[in-house]
Amino acid sequence: MSAREAIDFYFDFASPYGYFMSEKITPLAQHYGREVRWRPILLFAVLRAHGLAGPLEHPIKRDYMVNDFARSAALLGIDYRLPAVFPVLTQHAARAFYLLEKHVPEAAVPFAHSVLRSYLADGNDISDLDRISGLAEKASGGFWPAARIADLVRADDAKADLQAAIQHAVEQRVFGSPFVIADGEGFFGVDRLPHLEAKLARGQ
Amino acid sequence: MSAREAIDFYFDFASPYGYFMSEKITPLAQHYGREVRWRPILLFAVLRAHGLAGPLEHPIKRDYMVNDFARSAALLGIDYRLPAVFPVLTQHAARAFYLLEKHVPEAAVPFAHSVLRSYLADGNDISDLDRISGLAEKASGGFWPAARIADLVRADDAKADLQAAIQHAVEQRVFGSPFVIADGEGFFGVDRLPHLEAKLARGQ
Repeated sequence: MSAREAIDFYFDFASPYGYFMSEKITPLAQHYGREVRWRPILLFAVLRAHGLAGPLEHPIKRDYMVNDFARSAALLGIDYRLPAVFPVLTQHAARAFYLLEKHVPEAAVPFAHSVLRSYLADGNDISDLDRISGLAEKASGGFWPAARIADLVRADDAKADLQAAIQHAVEQRVFGSPFVIADGEGFFGVDRLPHLEAKLARGQ
Repeated sequence: MSAREAIDFYFDFASPYGYFMSEKITPLAQHYGREVRWRPILLFAVLRAHGLAGPLEHPIKRDYMVNDFARSAALLGIDYRLPAVFPVLTQHAARAFYLLEKHVPEAAVPFAHSVLRSYLADGNDISDLDRISGLAEKASGGFWPAARIADLVRADDAKADLQAAIQHAVEQRVFGSPFVIADGEGFFGVDRLPHLEAKLARGQ
Protein backbone atom coordinates (compact mmCIF):
# COMPACT_ATOMS: atom_id res chain seq x y z
CA MET A 1 0.00 0.00 0.00
CA SER A 2 1.06 3.53 -0.75
CA ALA A 3 1.81 5.99 2.00
CA ARG A 4 -0.60 8.42 0.35
CA GLU A 5 -3.92 9.36 1.88
CA ALA A 6 -6.81 6.95 1.57
CA ILE A 7 -9.50 7.63 -1.01
CA ASP A 8 -12.71 8.77 0.69
CA PHE A 9 -15.87 7.12 -0.59
CA TYR A 10 -19.07 8.89 0.53
CA PHE A 11 -22.41 7.21 -0.14
CA ASP A 12 -25.94 6.79 1.14
CA PHE A 13 -27.05 3.20 1.77
CA ALA A 14 -30.23 3.83 -0.27
CA SER A 15 -28.40 5.18 -3.33
CA PRO A 16 -28.28 2.84 -6.35
CA TYR A 17 -25.37 4.76 -7.87
CA GLY A 18 -23.64 4.55 -4.49
CA TYR A 19 -24.19 0.78 -4.50
CA PHE A 20 -22.74 0.50 -8.01
CA MET A 21 -19.67 2.44 -6.92
CA SER A 22 -19.33 0.21 -3.84
CA GLU A 23 -18.94 -2.78 -6.15
CA LYS A 24 -16.20 -1.10 -8.19
CA ILE A 25 -14.12 1.14 -5.96
CA THR A 26 -12.14 -1.46 -4.00
CA PRO A 27 -10.61 -3.32 -6.95
CA LEU A 28 -9.91 0.00 -8.72
CA ALA A 29 -8.15 1.46 -5.67
CA GLN A 30 -6.22 -1.75 -5.05
CA HIS A 31 -4.99 -1.76 -8.63
CA TYR A 32 -3.32 1.58 -7.90
CA GLY A 33 -2.12 0.61 -4.43
CA ARG A 34 -4.59 2.84 -2.63
CA GLU A 35 -6.86 2.26 0.34
CA VAL A 36 -10.51 3.29 0.48
CA ARG A 37 -12.14 4.89 3.50
CA TRP A 38 -15.89 4.20 3.39
CA ARG A 39 -17.97 7.13 4.64
CA PRO A 40 -21.72 6.46 4.73
CA ILE A 41 -23.83 9.61 4.98
CA LEU A 42 -27.48 10.57 4.97
CA LEU A 43 -27.72 12.26 1.60
CA PHE A 44 -30.79 14.31 2.45
CA ALA A 45 -28.97 15.80 5.47
CA VAL A 46 -25.88 16.69 3.42
CA LEU A 47 -27.97 18.30 0.69
CA ARG A 48 -30.09 20.18 3.22
CA ALA A 49 -26.94 21.59 4.80
CA HIS A 50 -25.93 22.99 1.40
CA GLY A 51 -29.45 24.18 0.57
CA LEU A 52 -29.67 21.77 -2.37
CA ALA A 53 -32.69 19.78 -3.56
CA GLY A 54 -32.66 15.97 -3.58
CA PRO A 55 -32.10 14.18 -6.90
CA LEU A 56 -35.47 12.41 -6.77
CA GLU A 57 -37.61 15.37 -5.72
CA HIS A 58 -38.82 16.21 -9.22
CA PRO A 59 -40.93 13.52 -10.94
CA ILE A 60 -39.22 14.07 -14.31
CA LYS A 61 -35.81 13.39 -12.79
CA ARG A 62 -37.07 10.51 -10.66
CA ASP A 63 -38.58 8.74 -13.69
CA TYR A 64 -35.39 9.31 -15.63
CA MET A 65 -33.18 7.98 -12.85
CA VAL A 66 -35.25 4.87 -12.17
CA ASN A 67 -34.64 3.90 -15.81
CA ASP A 68 -31.00 4.95 -15.64
CA PHE A 69 -30.34 2.87 -12.49
CA ALA A 70 -31.31 -0.33 -14.33
CA ARG A 71 -29.38 0.37 -17.53
CA SER A 72 -26.31 1.54 -15.56
CA ALA A 73 -26.37 -1.69 -13.51
CA ALA A 74 -26.58 -3.72 -16.73
CA LEU A 75 -23.68 -1.79 -18.26
CA LEU A 76 -21.56 -2.30 -15.13
CA GLY A 77 -22.56 -5.96 -14.76
CA ILE A 78 -24.06 -5.50 -11.29
CA ASP A 79 -26.99 -7.44 -9.84
CA TYR A 80 -29.65 -4.81 -9.09
CA ARG A 81 -33.37 -4.29 -8.85
CA LEU A 82 -35.35 -1.28 -7.68
CA PRO A 83 -36.66 -2.01 -4.15
CA ALA A 84 -40.41 -1.88 -3.63
CA VAL A 85 -39.89 0.94 -1.12
CA PHE A 86 -37.50 3.50 -2.55
CA PRO A 87 -35.74 5.39 -1.16
CA VAL A 88 -35.66 4.54 2.56
CA LEU A 89 -34.20 6.12 5.65
CA THR A 90 -30.69 4.82 6.24
CA GLN A 91 -29.73 6.17 9.63
CA HIS A 92 -29.71 2.73 11.29
CA ALA A 93 -27.41 1.31 8.62
CA ALA A 94 -25.07 4.30 8.73
CA ARG A 95 -24.88 4.37 12.54
CA ALA A 96 -24.21 0.61 12.65
CA PHE A 97 -21.40 1.09 10.12
CA TYR A 98 -19.58 3.65 12.29
CA LEU A 99 -20.18 1.50 15.37
CA LEU A 100 -18.49 -1.45 13.68
CA GLU A 101 -15.72 0.74 12.30
CA LYS A 102 -14.89 1.86 15.84
CA HIS A 103 -15.09 -1.51 17.60
CA VAL A 104 -14.72 -4.25 14.95
CA PRO A 105 -13.06 -2.35 12.09
CA GLU A 106 -12.52 -5.33 9.80
CA ALA A 107 -16.30 -5.94 9.83
CA ALA A 108 -17.37 -2.49 8.66
CA VAL A 109 -16.89 -2.82 4.87
CA PRO A 110 -18.30 -6.38 4.68
CA PHE A 111 -21.31 -5.06 6.62
CA ALA A 112 -21.72 -2.18 4.16
CA HIS A 113 -21.62 -4.57 1.20
CA SER A 114 -24.22 -6.81 2.85
CA VAL A 115 -26.58 -3.89 3.51
CA LEU A 116 -26.27 -2.44 0.01
CA ARG A 117 -26.85 -5.83 -1.61
CA SER A 118 -29.72 -6.67 0.75
CA TYR A 119 -31.52 -3.48 -0.29
CA LEU A 120 -30.54 -2.95 -3.92
CA ALA A 121 -30.15 -6.51 -5.19
CA ASP A 122 -32.59 -8.38 -2.93
CA GLY A 123 -35.12 -5.62 -2.23
CA ASN A 124 -35.18 -5.95 1.57
CA ASP A 125 -36.22 -3.08 3.83
CA ILE A 126 -32.99 -1.73 5.34
CA SER A 127 -34.75 0.91 7.41
CA ASP A 128 -35.70 -1.98 9.72
CA LEU A 129 -33.38 -1.98 12.75
CA ASP A 130 -33.75 -5.73 13.28
CA ARG A 131 -32.51 -6.41 9.78
CA ILE A 132 -29.59 -4.01 10.22
CA SER A 133 -28.52 -5.44 13.58
CA GLY A 134 -28.78 -8.97 12.18
CA LEU A 135 -26.50 -8.06 9.26
CA ALA A 136 -24.10 -6.33 11.67
CA GLU A 137 -23.97 -9.37 13.96
CA LYS A 138 -23.20 -11.58 11.01
CA ALA A 139 -20.52 -9.27 9.56
CA SER A 140 -18.85 -8.94 12.97
CA GLY A 141 -18.71 -12.72 13.42
CA GLY A 142 -20.87 -12.53 16.51
CA PHE A 143 -18.70 -9.92 18.30
CA TRP A 144 -22.02 -8.58 19.66
CA PRO A 145 -25.46 -10.21 19.54
CA ALA A 146 -27.99 -8.41 17.35
CA ALA A 147 -30.02 -7.16 20.32
CA ARG A 148 -26.94 -5.45 21.76
CA ILE A 149 -26.18 -3.84 18.40
CA ALA A 150 -29.75 -2.54 18.18
CA ASP A 151 -29.32 -0.90 21.60
CA LEU A 152 -26.00 0.67 20.57
CA VAL A 153 -27.45 1.95 17.26
CA ARG A 154 -30.21 3.73 19.19
CA ALA A 155 -27.76 5.28 21.67
CA ASP A 156 -26.61 8.90 21.66
CA ASP A 157 -23.00 7.98 20.89
CA ALA A 158 -23.99 6.37 17.59
CA LYS A 159 -26.14 9.37 16.66
CA ALA A 160 -23.28 11.74 17.43
CA ASP A 161 -20.76 9.75 15.38
CA LEU A 162 -23.02 9.80 12.32
CA GLN A 163 -23.71 13.50 12.79
CA ALA A 164 -19.96 14.14 12.87
CA ALA A 165 -19.47 12.13 9.67
CA ILE A 166 -22.22 14.08 7.94
CA GLN A 167 -20.77 17.38 9.12
CA HIS A 168 -17.35 16.35 7.82
CA ALA A 169 -18.86 15.44 4.44
CA VAL A 170 -20.52 18.86 4.22
CA GLU A 171 -17.19 20.55 5.01
CA GLN A 172 -15.53 18.45 2.29
CA ARG A 173 -18.11 19.84 -0.18
CA VAL A 174 -19.72 16.46 -0.80
CA PHE A 175 -23.06 16.99 -2.55
CA GLY A 176 -24.18 13.59 -3.82
CA SER A 177 -23.93 9.83 -3.61
CA PRO A 178 -21.53 8.37 -4.54
CA PHE A 179 -18.95 11.08 -4.03
CA VAL A 180 -15.28 10.10 -4.02
CA ILE A 181 -12.47 12.39 -2.93
CA ALA A 182 -8.97 11.41 -4.04
CA ASP A 183 -6.05 13.69 -3.17
CA GLY A 184 -8.41 16.63 -2.72
CA GLU A 185 -10.30 16.18 -5.99
CA GLY A 186 -14.01 15.28 -5.99
CA PHE A 187 -15.70 12.72 -8.24
CA PHE A 188 -19.51 12.73 -8.17
CA GLY A 189 -21.33 9.71 -9.54
CA VAL A 190 -20.42 6.22 -10.61
CA ASP A 191 -20.05 7.66 -14.12
CA ARG A 192 -16.85 9.37 -12.91
CA LEU A 193 -15.06 6.02 -12.55
CA PRO A 194 -13.06 6.68 -15.76
CA HIS A 195 -12.10 10.16 -14.52
CA LEU A 196 -11.05 8.72 -11.15
CA GLU A 197 -9.05 5.98 -12.81
CA ALA A 198 -7.28 8.54 -15.01
CA LYS A 199 -6.29 10.49 -11.90
CA LEU A 200 -5.06 7.42 -10.04
CA ALA A 201 -3.08 6.33 -13.10
CA ARG A 202 -1.45 9.77 -13.38
CA GLY A 203 -0.60 9.74 -9.67
CA GLN A 204 1.39 6.53 -9.84
CA MET B 1 -29.49 5.11 -43.33
CA SER B 2 -32.10 3.26 -41.32
CA ALA B 3 -35.78 4.04 -41.73
CA ARG B 4 -35.99 4.47 -37.94
CA GLU B 5 -36.56 7.80 -36.31
CA ALA B 6 -33.66 10.20 -36.03
CA ILE B 7 -31.91 10.56 -32.69
CA ASP B 8 -32.78 13.92 -31.09
CA PHE B 9 -29.83 15.82 -29.64
CA TYR B 10 -30.84 18.68 -27.34
CA PHE B 11 -28.16 21.09 -26.13
CA ASP B 12 -27.50 24.66 -25.10
CA PHE B 13 -24.76 26.46 -27.04
CA ALA B 14 -23.13 27.54 -23.75
CA SER B 15 -22.98 24.02 -22.29
CA PRO B 16 -19.52 22.41 -22.18
CA TYR B 17 -21.03 18.93 -21.79
CA GLY B 18 -23.29 19.73 -24.74
CA TYR B 19 -20.23 20.73 -26.76
CA PHE B 20 -18.47 17.48 -25.85
CA MET B 21 -21.51 15.49 -26.98
CA SER B 22 -21.63 17.50 -30.22
CA GLU B 23 -18.15 16.24 -31.06
CA LYS B 24 -19.12 12.59 -30.44
CA ILE B 25 -22.73 12.06 -31.43
CA THR B 26 -22.44 12.15 -35.23
CA PRO B 27 -19.81 9.41 -35.64
CA LEU B 28 -21.58 7.28 -33.01
CA ALA B 29 -24.94 7.58 -34.76
CA GLN B 30 -23.41 6.99 -38.20
CA HIS B 31 -21.76 3.83 -36.92
CA TYR B 32 -25.23 2.46 -36.18
CA GLY B 33 -26.82 3.84 -39.35
CA ARG B 34 -28.80 6.52 -37.55
CA GLU B 35 -29.34 10.21 -38.25
CA VAL B 36 -29.09 12.96 -35.63
CA ARG B 37 -31.55 15.84 -35.35
CA TRP B 38 -29.82 18.76 -33.59
CA ARG B 39 -32.14 20.68 -31.28
CA PRO B 40 -30.54 23.71 -29.61
CA ILE B 41 -32.47 24.99 -26.62
CA LEU B 42 -32.10 27.65 -23.96
CA LEU B 43 -31.42 25.46 -20.94
CA PHE B 44 -32.55 28.05 -18.39
CA ALA B 45 -35.94 28.30 -20.13
CA VAL B 46 -36.41 24.51 -20.21
CA LEU B 47 -35.46 24.17 -16.55
CA ARG B 48 -37.69 27.08 -15.56
CA ALA B 49 -40.64 25.42 -17.33
CA HIS B 50 -40.09 22.31 -15.18
CA GLY B 51 -39.46 24.32 -11.99
CA LEU B 52 -35.88 23.03 -11.78
CA ALA B 53 -32.77 24.92 -10.66
CA GLY B 54 -29.86 25.48 -13.04
CA PRO B 55 -26.78 23.26 -12.66
CA LEU B 56 -24.48 26.20 -11.92
CA GLU B 57 -26.68 28.03 -9.44
CA HIS B 58 -24.99 26.64 -6.33
CA PRO B 59 -21.31 27.62 -5.89
CA ILE B 60 -20.34 24.11 -4.69
CA LYS B 61 -21.72 22.55 -7.86
CA ARG B 62 -20.32 25.28 -10.08
CA ASP B 63 -16.80 24.84 -8.70
CA TYR B 64 -17.11 21.09 -9.09
CA MET B 65 -18.32 21.34 -12.67
CA VAL B 66 -15.70 23.83 -13.80
CA ASN B 67 -13.08 21.25 -12.77
CA ASP B 68 -15.07 18.40 -14.28
CA PHE B 69 -15.46 20.17 -17.65
CA ALA B 70 -11.68 20.25 -18.09
CA ARG B 71 -10.98 16.68 -17.01
CA SER B 72 -13.92 15.38 -19.09
CA ALA B 73 -12.59 17.19 -22.18
CA ALA B 74 -9.15 15.67 -21.56
CA LEU B 75 -10.63 12.19 -21.17
CA LEU B 76 -12.65 12.58 -24.39
CA GLY B 77 -9.76 14.14 -26.31
CA ILE B 78 -11.61 17.38 -27.06
CA ASP B 79 -10.07 20.84 -27.39
CA TYR B 80 -11.69 22.94 -24.65
CA ARG B 81 -11.12 25.86 -22.37
CA LEU B 82 -13.47 27.65 -20.00
CA PRO B 83 -14.50 30.95 -21.64
CA ALA B 84 -13.75 34.16 -19.72
CA VAL B 85 -17.50 34.88 -19.61
CA PHE B 86 -19.37 31.75 -18.60
CA PRO B 87 -22.15 30.97 -19.19
CA VAL B 88 -23.61 33.37 -21.78
CA LEU B 89 -27.04 33.91 -23.29
CA THR B 90 -27.41 31.78 -26.39
CA GLN B 91 -30.66 32.93 -27.93
CA HIS B 92 -28.97 34.49 -30.99
CA ALA B 93 -27.07 31.30 -31.72
CA ALA B 94 -30.13 29.10 -31.25
CA ARG B 95 -32.39 31.31 -33.38
CA ALA B 96 -29.76 31.45 -36.15
CA PHE B 97 -29.56 27.65 -36.06
CA TYR B 98 -33.30 27.20 -36.68
CA LEU B 99 -33.21 29.90 -39.36
CA LEU B 100 -30.51 28.02 -41.23
CA GLU B 101 -32.25 24.69 -40.68
CA LYS B 102 -35.36 26.08 -42.35
CA HIS B 103 -33.72 27.83 -45.29
CA VAL B 104 -30.22 26.33 -45.77
CA PRO B 105 -30.55 22.99 -43.99
CA GLU B 106 -27.14 21.61 -44.90
CA ALA B 107 -25.56 24.63 -43.16
CA ALA B 108 -27.20 24.18 -39.76
CA VAL B 109 -24.96 21.51 -38.21
CA PRO B 110 -21.70 23.04 -39.51
CA PHE B 111 -22.89 26.36 -38.06
CA ALA B 112 -23.61 24.69 -34.69
CA HIS B 113 -20.12 23.14 -34.63
CA SER B 114 -18.54 26.50 -35.44
CA VAL B 115 -20.44 28.29 -32.66
CA LEU B 116 -19.67 25.63 -30.02
CA ARG B 117 -15.98 25.61 -30.94
CA SER B 118 -15.80 29.40 -31.11
CA TYR B 119 -17.11 29.64 -27.55
CA LEU B 120 -15.77 26.55 -25.80
CA ALA B 121 -12.44 26.01 -27.55
CA ASP B 122 -11.54 29.59 -28.57
CA GLY B 123 -13.28 31.54 -25.80
CA ASN B 124 -15.16 33.98 -28.02
CA ASP B 125 -18.33 35.75 -26.89
CA ILE B 126 -21.19 34.01 -28.69
CA SER B 127 -23.85 36.24 -27.17
CA ASP B 128 -22.64 38.84 -29.69
CA LEU B 129 -25.06 38.95 -32.63
CA ASP B 130 -22.36 40.16 -35.06
CA ARG B 131 -20.25 37.11 -34.27
CA ILE B 132 -23.23 34.78 -34.69
CA SER B 133 -24.33 36.28 -37.99
CA GLY B 134 -20.76 36.16 -39.26
CA LEU B 135 -20.50 32.45 -38.42
CA ALA B 136 -23.91 31.83 -40.00
CA GLU B 137 -22.93 33.64 -43.20
CA LYS B 138 -19.80 31.53 -43.41
CA ALA B 139 -21.56 28.23 -42.71
CA SER B 140 -24.24 29.01 -45.29
CA GLY B 141 -21.67 29.75 -47.98
CA GLY B 142 -22.89 33.32 -48.28
CA PHE B 143 -26.55 32.38 -48.86
CA TRP B 144 -27.32 35.55 -46.89
CA PRO B 145 -24.96 38.35 -45.91
CA ALA B 146 -24.36 38.65 -42.17
CA ALA B 147 -26.38 41.87 -41.86
CA ARG B 148 -29.44 40.14 -43.31
CA ILE B 149 -29.00 37.21 -40.91
CA ALA B 150 -28.79 39.62 -37.98
CA ASP B 151 -32.11 41.17 -39.05
CA LEU B 152 -33.74 37.75 -39.39
CA VAL B 153 -32.43 36.59 -35.98
CA ARG B 154 -34.04 39.65 -34.37
CA ALA B 155 -37.38 39.08 -36.13
CA ASP B 156 -40.50 37.62 -34.51
CA ASP B 157 -40.45 34.51 -36.71
CA ALA B 158 -37.06 33.46 -35.37
CA LYS B 159 -38.17 34.07 -31.80
CA ALA B 160 -41.32 31.98 -32.34
CA ASP B 161 -39.39 29.10 -33.89
CA LEU B 162 -37.02 28.93 -30.93
CA GLN B 163 -39.91 29.16 -28.49
CA ALA B 164 -41.59 26.23 -30.26
CA ALA B 165 -38.38 24.18 -30.06
CA ILE B 166 -38.07 24.91 -26.35
CA GLN B 167 -41.71 24.02 -25.75
CA HIS B 168 -41.22 20.77 -27.62
CA ALA B 169 -38.15 19.94 -25.50
CA VAL B 170 -40.15 20.57 -22.32
CA GLU B 171 -42.89 18.24 -23.57
CA GLN B 172 -40.26 15.59 -24.34
CA ARG B 173 -39.15 15.82 -20.67
CA VAL B 174 -35.72 17.19 -21.54
CA PHE B 175 -34.11 18.58 -18.37
CA GLY B 176 -30.45 19.18 -19.16
CA SER B 177 -27.75 19.70 -21.77
CA PRO B 178 -26.85 17.50 -23.52
CA PHE B 179 -30.00 15.42 -23.58
CA VAL B 180 -30.35 12.77 -26.26
CA ILE B 181 -33.58 10.92 -27.02
CA ALA B 182 -33.27 7.70 -29.00
CA ASP B 183 -36.39 5.64 -29.71
CA GLY B 184 -38.18 7.28 -26.79
CA GLU B 185 -35.40 6.76 -24.22
CA GLY B 186 -33.60 9.76 -22.68
CA PHE B 187 -29.85 10.07 -22.10
CA PHE B 188 -28.75 13.02 -20.00
CA GLY B 189 -25.10 14.03 -20.08
CA VAL B 190 -22.09 13.21 -22.19
CA ASP B 191 -21.32 10.52 -19.59
CA ARG B 192 -24.30 8.56 -21.00
CA LEU B 193 -22.47 7.93 -24.28
CA PRO B 194 -21.77 4.28 -23.27
CA HIS B 195 -25.43 3.78 -22.32
CA LEU B 196 -26.54 5.30 -25.64
CA GLU B 197 -24.09 3.16 -27.56
CA ALA B 198 -25.37 0.02 -25.79
CA LYS B 199 -28.92 0.90 -26.82
CA LEU B 200 -27.98 1.60 -30.43
CA ALA B 201 -26.02 -1.67 -30.56
CA ARG B 202 -28.99 -3.64 -29.18
CA GLY B 203 -31.33 -1.97 -31.69
CA GLN B 204 -29.37 -3.11 -34.72
